[in-house]
Amino acid sequence: MAHRVWNGQAQMPSVMDSQIEIVKGEGSYVWDAQGKKYFDGSASLWYANIGHGRTELAEAAYKQMLELETYHTFGRFINEPARTLADRLAAMSPIENPKVIFNSGGSDAIDVACKLARRYWQAVGETERTVIVSRDTSYHGLHAFGTAIAGLEPNREGYGTESLVPDTVRVSANDPARLEEQILAIGPQRIAAFVAEPVIGAGGVIGPADGYFETVQRLAKEHGFLFIADEVITGFGRTGKMFASERYSLDPDIHTMAKGLTSGYAPLGGIQIAERVWEPFFTGGEEAPAFRHGVTYSGHATACAVAHANLDVLEREDLVDRAGKLEDVLATELDTLVGVDGIAEVRSRAGFLGAVKFTEDLVSETIVRRAAERGVILRALPDNALQISPPFVAEPEDLALTVSAIRESVAEG
Amino acid sequence: MAHRVWNGQAQMPSVMDSQIEIVKGEGSYVWDAQGKKYFDGSASLWYANIGHGRTELAEAAYKQMLELETYHTFGRFINEPARTLADRLAAMSPIENPKVIFNSGGSDAIDVACKLARRYWQAVGETERTVIVSRDTSYHGLHAFGTAIAGLEPNREGYGTESLVPDTVRVSANDPARLEEQILAIGPQRIAAFVAEPVIGAGGVIGPADGYFETVQRLAKEHGFLFIADEVITGFGRTGKMFASERYSLDPDIHTMAKGLTSGYAPLGGIQIAERVWEPFFTGGEEAPAFRHGVTYSGHATACAVAHANLDVLEREDLVDRAGKLEDVLATELDTLVGVDGIAEVRSRAGFLGAVKFTEDLVSETIVRRAAERGVILRALPDNALQISPPFVAEPEDLALTVSAIRESVAEG
Ligand SMILES: Cc1ncc(COP(=O)(O)O)c(C=O)c1O
Ligand SMILES: Cc1ncc(COP(=O)(O)O)c(C=O)c1O
Repeated sequence: MAHRVWNGQAQMPSVMDSQIEIVKGEGSYVWDAQGKKYFDGSASLWYANIGHGRTELAEAAYKQMLELETYHTFGRFINEPARTLADRLAAMSPIENPKVIFNSGGSDAIDVACKLARRYWQAVGETERTVIVSRDTSYHGLHAFGTAIAGLEPNREGYGTESLVPDTVRVSANDPARLEEQILAIGPQRIAAFVAEPVIGAGGVIGPADGYFETVQRLAKEHGFLFIADEVITGFGRTGKMFASERYSLDPDIHTMAKGLTSGYAPLGGIQIAERVWEPFFTGGEEAPAFRHGVTYSGHATACAVAHANLDVLEREDLVDRAGKLEDVLATELDTLVGVDGIAEVRSRAGFLGAVKFTEDLVSETIVRRAAERGVILRALPDNALQISPPFVAEPEDLALTVSAIRESVAEG
Repeated sequence: MAHRVWNGQAQMPSVMDSQIEIVKGEGSYVWDAQGKKYFDGSASLWYANIGHGRTELAEAAYKQMLELETYHTFGRFINEPARTLADRLAAMSPIENPKVIFNSGGSDAIDVACKLARRYWQAVGETERTVIVSRDTSYHGLHAFGTAIAGLEPNREGYGTESLVPDTVRVSANDPARLEEQILAIGPQRIAAFVAEPVIGAGGVIGPADGYFETVQRLAKEHGFLFIADEVITGFGRTGKMFASERYSLDPDIHTMAKGLTSGYAPLGGIQIAERVWEPFFTGGEEAPAFRHGVTYSGHATACAVAHANLDVLEREDLVDRAGKLEDVLATELDTLVGVDGIAEVRSRAGFLGAVKFTEDLVSETIVRRAAERGVILRALPDNALQISPPFVAEPEDLALTVSAIRESVAEG
């Protein structure tokens, strides 16, 4: 079943032989074209938080499209779902009195967050501040900015220059002492922003070490640079709080959002921006500097209506709380894999997500294929590990099934 | 009605006082929260081609969401709407046997087109080819790459380095002789790709001068660099052909799409890629180079289902043909503005779109505000002009109304 769609960071010849066409979804389960049922153990790409096939979300999209599929939000124009969604998000944001820039996904969000950080420092006259610092093994999407700041080296390479967008530096992902040294070596007065996932996702599902973010925030304060929390995975409940910034006491100047904002029902992303950062652009009347940014589908009315319906479900069914409880269930299940032959490491307890890393004689991609045969969808991560990040509506039995599927797949050798 | 949504390339204090909240759309018309009706003379941002409020598209979204809102297309995974849409697009593409990369908008499309051009030359060993060339006054969206290659200078500036992504050069927008000189001065062996809108949109609605694209394509052939056609505005009928590449005999290696692909009902964009460019990445088995790119919502199932429904309408109602006919009607109407006091220039006959440029004593933004009071939505362009790009379902009377609204607004002085 070769096809024309090119996507997914893969070496193409190695995946073209074995495509899985997903045709149906309901709750935590999806079905392929052959009728095989799978537990969606990765929530697609960490996003199907409220589960698949929700009639309520389909109805929200339908109703909005009948009334007004969308209208742009450039200049004088606005639409109601975008306006009210921005207010609703502001009320739950770790940032007080934010402005909101909407777009269509996580890479968009990182791109505009970094652009705005760069623009901000020029606007306020600290023109030397152009460096974006990110963590080793981080993932921030794959537009030009996300590519340039990637902590996963293979994603950065192959474009003919050291960094696709220059003035980027990677630092220790989790060692606060090394971090401080590295920041001082860069020259903190040159740093525009430090960007970090509260919990590293695609780079291995790794929660923050004690003292790491305390050090980041202390350095940001001491040296004045901005702190951008990339909450594309962690936002909207994945860590048992609405935002991981709450769980880990982060105080970002900008935070990103995508995935859980709509649970994937519509492409929507964006950033929330602290007053410190937006204030210069809204002050001084005709003399105010402009941030000449905007994409056509910013504040897409139907995507915003879908986000509202997604948040309604999240709130009504207490799903953030449920994710917090399932974190413990998953962690307890994963504990049973510790010490199993072929398993090098188990990562859990940084939210309702986890990873299992294999010893060198196993290949994570193979374990993932075997688990799929057993009816559980997981995802290989770059460090010979696999990712577990189920929908918040998963049942404890689903998590037990997932861990058995991994155990049996490993036992095949 | 101040709100939190920040968007639109504007100097914010100058637009925050006079917001228009659009709440309803039907065909070529939209209504604001006060019940005022407008002719949508700009088709929102050049995208509402099949018109607003189509029940058929709402139903397509509803049905797909009930079945499977989406599933990712990374690695082994694919979904039916993405797979079949790629085939359908390939069948209408100016590029033979293309691969298709989907994403969520025009800036995404430009970003990945430029990234792929850069990656391609590294993969085939011409490592010196890193320069992206674009036209003066061009607009290619506002992600990092689009910002860097913008021909509209204010969009490029204010980030602290000469070019946000370096190795970009702008050349004459429409003078073939100067173009040849400039390409030779850059060093054609350093050029990765030449990027161009077949009809310059946001930069003023300007069709190609005689011989311009012939020269571009001759130089690309002679010197080996890629040619990227940015069909974000022109694609899917705006010039009276399915793609402007047909109308202007362009033979791109990559072309972008967004806007008209869904008429804005869902955020969807992408690129089509010629065999020359994709072939190295699909050949050589395990030795093939990888293009490590992919965004979460690439091939979003509901967005692709909406695109299918949009193309169904476009085809069934012969709307591309209709756009071709309306081009003449609009041009004839606009001709009546030539020589009118206050009007410096009228641009038409490069598709179903046009522009009116004002003399220095008038401000296009003011004319646009007056036209809105008269019930016609238009958009100011950077060169003291305004844009006209109605839905393809507009009636000749709507175009007459639009031109009267401009005439009357100019007459106010
Ligand atoms: C932390 C983080 N940031 C950004 C992105 C990019 O999001 P998208 O794929 O929607 O562009 C991702 C995607 O997985 C992510 O995990
Ligand atoms: C020619 C062209 N390219 C790219 C874009 C960017 O598209 P988007 O705003 O969907 O990111 C636009 C938007 O108007 C455009 O006109």
